[in-house]
Amino acid sequence: MVDSHGVNERYLEDIRTGDRFRTADYAVTEGEIIEYARHYDPQAFHTNPVEARNSVFGGLVASGWYTAAITMRLIALSEVRIAGGLIGLGVEELRWPRPVRPGDTLHVEVEALEVRPSHSHPDRGIVRVRNTTLNQKGEVVQTMVTTLFVPRRDGQTD
Amino acid sequence: MVDSHGVNERYLEDIRTGDRFRTADYAVTEGEIIEYARHYDPQAFHTNPVEARNSVFGGLVASGWYTAAITMRLIALSEVRIAGGLIGLGVEELRWPRPVRPGDTLHVEVEALEVRPSHSHPDRGIVRVRNTTLNQKGEVVQTMVTTLFVPRRDGQTD
Repeated sequence: MVDSHGVNERYLEDIRTGDRFRTADYAVTEGEIIEYARHYDPQAFHTNPVEARNSVFGGLVASGWYTAAITMRLIALSEVRIAGGLIGLGVEELRWPRPVRPGDTLHVEVEALEVRPSHSHPDRGIVRVRNTTLNQKGEVVQTMVTTLFVPRRDGQTD
Repeated sequence: MVDSHGVNERYLEDIRTGDRFRTADYAVTEGEIIEYARHYDPQAFHTNPVEARNSVFGGLVASGWYTAAITMRLIALSEVRIAGGLIGLGVEELRWPRPVRPGDTLHVEVEALEVRPSHSHPDRGIVRVRNTTLNQKGEVVQTMVTTLFVPRRDGQTD
């Protein structure tokens, strides 16, 4: 769990355009792909390795929403912590250029694209971030651009 | 599980711009919000009802990725089935204008925005869809526009 009262948290003033970091790795198993999909994306190419062979994917693949969930986990557990937590306003351009398969090991590369104060909330700012999720071969399995609310160090209201 | 060999599947020719449908309802529990977040979005405002009171949300809220996952489930289990399954190429404009809280009941309204043949794959087409997820008060908790690959009835290659 992220401690929202830690001393190493980043405020808007601590983030610069172009800042990057890489998360830890996450090993994807067939069992977890199937368990996730049974509950959240029940389609044969995500839940049944035999039927998946006859699908357009030629084998079992993870739900894109599973890949997004693992991406969130890796970022939330990384050493880069945003003061008050990761509050996402939304996501642009979520893409799955290549499926995730059992046995893949994923990591995320995060880059700050834009850092600016909020006009409507003077105690906060907006940070646009590109999250790129890659497999063990360095192939991109997911890209997204997300917008975060980040508090200002000198503008806290609570 | 969606049967990808059913007789009621829709091909590109069966979908018209402006077509709409509404999914079933899904009741969100505190336990499921916490279970999902412990694994995929471990932050106190998603996992700890007591700490969440001091967060910007004033109480426990679901991860946006949980809301996206429930949205996928509701669509995958609906009576509207796309031939070959729901193959998403990506998502534009994923937004969470209002958080999902324990006790909410969600449903999804789906609308076809654009239906056209694929230039690169003559056996398929592209359907752009708007998915709007609402709570029991009719408040929008998530919006997205997604692009699906849909096979043509007369262009099957397998």
